[in-house]
Amino acid sequence: MSTSALRVGVVGVGVMGADHADRLVHRIAGATLVAVSDPDTARAAALAARYDGVRAIPDPLDLIADEGVDAVLIASPGFVHEEQVLACVAHGKYTLCEKPLTMDSESALRVVEAERKAGSPLIQVGFMRRFDPEYAEMKRLLEAGGLGRLLLVHNVHRNKSVGDSFRSEMIVRDSLVHEVDVCRWLFDDEIDTITVLAPKPTGRAADGILDPQVAIFRMAGGGMATTEVFVNSQVGYEVRCEAVAECGNVTIGLGQSVFVRRDNRYGGYIPDDFRDRFGRAYDLEVQAWVDACRRGDVVGPTAWDGYAAVAVCTAGMQSLATGQPVRVDLVDRAEVYGGADT
Amino acid sequence: MSTSALRVGVVGVGVMGADHADRLVHRIAGATLVAVSDPDTARAAALAARYDGVRAIPDPLDLIADEGVDAVLIASPGFVHEEQVLACVAHGKYTLCEKPLTMDSESALRVVEAERKAGSPLIQVGFMRRFDPEYAEMKRLLEAGGLGRLLLVHNVHRNKSVGDSFRSEMIVRDSLVHEVDVCRWLFDDEIDTITVLAPKPTGRAADGILDPQVAIFRMAGGGMATTEVFVNSQVGYEVRCEAVAECGNVTIGLGQSVFVRRDNRYGGYIPDDFRDRFGRAYDLEVQAWVDACRRGDVVGPTAWDGYAAVAVCTAGMQSLATGQPVRVDLVDRAEVYGGADT
Amino acid sequence: MSTSALRVGVVGVGVMGADHADRLVHRIAGATLVAVSDPDTARAAALAARYDGVRAIPDPLDLIADEGVDAVLIASPGFVHEEQVLACVAHGKYTLCEKPLTMDSESALRVVEAERKAGSPLIQVGFMRRFDPEYAEMKRLLEAGGLGRLLLVHNVHRNKSVGDSFRSEMIVRDSLVHEVDVCRWLFDDEIDTITVLAPKPTGRAADGILDPQVAIFRMAGGGMATTEVFVNSQVGYEVRCEAVAECGNVTIGLGQSVFVRRDNRYGGYIPDDFRDRFGRAYDLEVQAWVDACRRGDVVGPTAWDGYAAVAVCTAGMQSLATGQPVRVDLVDRAEVYGGADT
Amino acid sequence: MSTSALRVGVVGVGVMGADHADRLVHRIAGATLVAVSDPDTARAAALAARYDGVRAIPDPLDLIADEGVDAVLIASPGFVHEEQVLACVAHGKYTLCEKPLTMDSESALRVVEAERKAGSPLIQVGFMRRFDPEYAEMKRLLEAGGLGRLLLVHNVHRNKSVGDSFRSEMIVRDSLVHEVDVCRWLFDDEIDTITVLAPKPTGRAADGILDPQVAIFRMAGGGMATTEVFVNSQVGYEVRCEAVAECGNVTIGLGQSVFVRRDNRYGGYIPDDFRDRFGRAYDLEVQAWVDACRRGDVVGPTAWDGYAAVAVCTAGMQSLATGQPVRVDLVDRAEVYGGADT
Repeated sequence: MSTSALRVGVVGVGVMGADHADRLVHRIAGATLVAVSDPDTARAAALAARYDGVRAIPDPLDLIADEGVDAVLIASPGFVHEEQVLACVAHGKYTLCEKPLTMDSESALRVVEAERKAGSPLIQVGFMRRFDPEYAEMKRLLEAGGLGRLLLVHNVHRNKSVGDSFRSEMIVRDSLVHEVDVCRWLFDDEIDTITVLAPKPTGRAADGILDPQVAIFRMAGGGMATTEVFVNSQVGYEVRCEAVAECGNVTIGLGQSVFVRRDNRYGGYIPDDFRDRFGRAYDLEVQAWVDACRRGDVVGPTAWDGYAAVAVCTAGMQSLATGQPVRVDLVDRAEVYGGADT
Repeated sequence: MSTSALRVGVVGVGVMGADHADRLVHRIAGATLVAVSDPDTARAAALAARYDGVRAIPDPLDLIADEGVDAVLIASPGFVHEEQVLACVAHGKYTLCEKPLTMDSESALRVVEAERKAGSPLIQVGFMRRFDPEYAEMKRLLEAGGLGRLLLVHNVHRNKSVGDSFRSEMIVRDSLVHEVDVCRWLFDDEIDTITVLAPKPTGRAADGILDPQVAIFRMAGGGMATTEVFVNSQVGYEVRCEAVAECGNVTIGLGQSVFVRRDNRYGGYIPDDFRDRFGRAYDLEVQAWVDACRRGDVVGPTAWDGYAAVAVCTAGMQSLATGQPVRVDLVDRAEVYGGADT
Repeated sequence: MSTSALRVGVVGVGVMGADHADRLVHRIAGATLVAVSDPDTARAAALAARYDGVRAIPDPLDLIADEGVDAVLIASPGFVHEEQVLACVAHGKYTLCEKPLTMDSESALRVVEAERKAGSPLIQVGFMRRFDPEYAEMKRLLEAGGLGRLLLVHNVHRNKSVGDSFRSEMIVRDSLVHEVDVCRWLFDDEIDTITVLAPKPTGRAADGILDPQVAIFRMAGGGMATTEVFVNSQVGYEVRCEAVAECGNVTIGLGQSVFVRRDNRYGGYIPDDFRDRFGRAYDLEVQAWVDACRRGDVVGPTAWDGYAAVAVCTAGMQSLATGQPVRVDLVDRAEVYGGADT
Repeated sequence: MSTSALRVGVVGVGVMGADHADRLVHRIAGATLVAVSDPDTARAAALAARYDGVRAIPDPLDLIADEGVDAVLIASPGFVHEEQVLACVAHGKYTLCEKPLTMDSESALRVVEAERKAGSPLIQVGFMRRFDPEYAEMKRLLEAGGLGRLLLVHNVHRNKSVGDSFRSEMIVRDSLVHEVDVCRWLFDDEIDTITVLAPKPTGRAADGILDPQVAIFRMAGGGMATTEVFVNSQVGYEVRCEAVAECGNVTIGLGQSVFVRRDNRYGGYIPDDFRDRFGRAYDLEVQAWVDACRRGDVVGPTAWDGYAAVAVCTAGMQSLATGQPVRVDLVDRAEVYGGADT
């Protein structure tokens, strides 16, 4: 692991890119945001000004070529990806490119060919579901072997609603694409044929839009998958996946932890350990503490809370010995803790 | 926000402290681990050697006083907390102190008094449940007002098992203490009386240990709470909390997202947005990418995966137009992607 | 089993008694409702007139003594139970008496004494939770032995709201009484001491009413139970129970099937068999068919539905052989099925 | 409603027919089992002998024609259904015929034609899912209108395993047939085309069996449905159904009560009333009481249990007034209750 932080440039700072910039500054260890680029130069400049030491570089190809940039996160629109990604490969820059890689197979193949010539991969494509703890646990359970060979996958992918400019083809290209990657990854296999069907559309979509749609994948190795995509479901953002294997099935996205059904039992896992249950809480606690220290502040439980807890537990130990209620007597709360204990 | 990273020293690098050290290096933005201290100097040295630029400082008071240390994380045993925390206050260092603050009310009060004299709080106590997303959402729902005044809290706190040295009083001091803080925080009120009762103990605990226990808190403002603590439950680590308010109740820890019951409905929230559902996946994706870049590696979906997804979606758009299955023809996979696409 | 139907008289035909009368006529095999009695003689007469062959008998003691009545279901107010139940015992009539058995311990003891003298029990008290499939499954799981000895029970018992005449004591006598029986039954033990505590009451109850309440039972054999009763919860009718045993715990009433946690797993049971999953559906189907036949009617799926299903499946078998979509051609629907197929 | 009980004959007393016979005797109000018929005359005779007043009639057509039989329940194999059902129509007997109605479309059409000539329907086909409380609630919610038009249905139908004689076509004809009826009923529409696809089969099915299968229905009115049938899933009997409508979706079969998702909320219904939650418990309680009375027995809570509950509640009311624990003093338990209180 390099001892110095990775210097990252972000190309495209719309909603997604700005979110990534914020993530790099506030939630990611070992990285430093050093540059941003956007055709909307005012937007890029405003974002750069928000953080210390971040340059706004008008031309994304200049950002990519910049010697002070170790790695590039591409969050620009898909139709400019080919040029930018090829530039990253040409300059040997590690790249995280939001999906889609490019707009059609031919251009995607040019990227693949460039990497092949470069001799080693530099590009990671932004199929973030592989990093979702629920999907990752599903994959782990399938690979652990006890469930047997994967036979079928059922996906549901719903948005509450989309703008009227969202056309039928975009349901395939921009929504279904996530399930394309999920199925290739879960089966560790290529999709051999795809069929996309549509029932009579919902009245809540724009006229002429085929929504919902049902896609059927047949995998090269004989597996199958069904996927409902429904971008005007009116319900909310719902993503579910069920993997059906020879000896059991795994479901995620039900508002529950990863669900396994096998041997006449359904249910999930109870951790052994508090670090498993509260690992995320510890991360958030320490991040909140670091952030507060850097702005000269204290958040969260104070020494007063620590004192009160000790006093209550001391009384509790007395009560345990006697079975009787025990009063907790605290001193008056100092002004210094006046508003800090909530 | 300070533009430079916070330089943190960790005091006590047993299981908990080592975990925090790892967290500061690998998962926390804006912080740099600079020093560690432990009575077991070999352990401290080994930990320091694992990271770049981390010093092992034998005496914890030297670490606390060190000018290169901006803030201190105390993960030493509770009986040395008083001296260390008072030193932190004396040196004006921001401090995150694992619970308990100290071993008894008198010593805790000396810390409170030191902070009062210092004029502003410097210490955060490690009650991490306030940072757990489920507890935080419960608190937010209660404060949002629609559920009315909080009346009752029911807690369950279970460990799978503990060592034979875990005594009855430790169930109060080391386990129940978390629910002490949770109830004080949820009610925003002090505990007025505590009663701790014990049924006939489980046969799975060491002889003479009162396990499980049931604690009853009466809050100063009239609220009540019940807590079961059971440290040899044989089941796993289970932490649940139900907050009963005048117009509804909220439950967490059921292996489900935060559960609300009101107006003849039970259930939870479906997000509007993919950033809500997959925000954590994005964090993990970008952290994995940064970590991989720093060691000169690529993980996760490659350009080949990007190409295959584009090819499948292109075929899918054709199928949508015709209703017929469409074959997906991929070129041969280049050797460079040989083992990287899973 | 007697070959002739049991002739049942119902004493008290308010809400509960009228519900039982309807149950005996429409949902119970092997019983015939023959008589009803109520101080409101018009109400009793109206109910009797609704069914064939049911007499309204003004004096409940006459109904109890009647030779044409084999068994008595008592759904009158609690304060007349003693006289009526004692009459049932005197006449040797089997009796199902709604709770409470009587209004105080002394009168209940007179009933017990009468049965003791009679030499064998005749009375069943209406603690219907023992017959609820979820409670019964919980009891079965505890008795099966794998979970070890029962240590603790946690109950929640909530009503949406009650009338202003519902007083604090009634929360104990009329609501908590169910959990009294549940705990005695689950532990197979008597309650040794009871403590009833109340937090500051909800603002949604009538002035002066202590609602919610928390009861603590200590069982003779050392077990414990906590029960929240909250009769103005505003939420709905919520009854939950968690039984905590030495090696696992069982929860019911979460809007889920019986939930077991043990060995780091939570979850429930998936049946082997369709009769397990759909046994209740078969009962309801056949009851609906019998009821329809008796009034000269047909409900539910008709021969047209049977024909359409056969036609679809025939097409499906063709499709399975070819992998192609197959059209289903149905003849025109005859008028006789015009409105019957929904 | 006829005042006398419906006299029912059962044709075919294999597993399913015997189960129905038992149901008619023990769980159904208003019906009397009077006759059974089976090619295995010894089996029929044995079953008849088990109940009082039931005749075994060798020829099913004689049973159907019998003047003492008001209605016929046909549970014989499907290939004899046509002859038996046509005989029922000819004799004007109400009939509940287990699925399939007949073995092919032509014969089913002959039944339909016979009913058309008879002028009114007599036959109910045994698609019992329409009577399952979960499916019925789903149908009710869809018809209530708030969810908008039904767009898509997703079904899962799994058996743990089937015998080696279960062939690929039977998955369509004997398993999928239930979803055929469910979809026709939920959409209130006919199926226009059916496609049945199969992935590479599980290794847990007999050689040559296509298991699992995925069926796609396109409804005449434009709706669609997907159904997975998997008869060797190794998991258990799993039947799930999700109905996707324009403004929300409804899911059943998840081991939870009927689940609705709409307006960014998922969850289910909490009843207002104890009769809703415990209606089934009351039915089972009264049936158990009637059955016990008829064999001269008492089950369930006795007068002793009633006495103990009153004594505890009396103590509880004292504790409520004082906040102190109160001892419960019971008299010695009479021998008459010696073993009856568990």
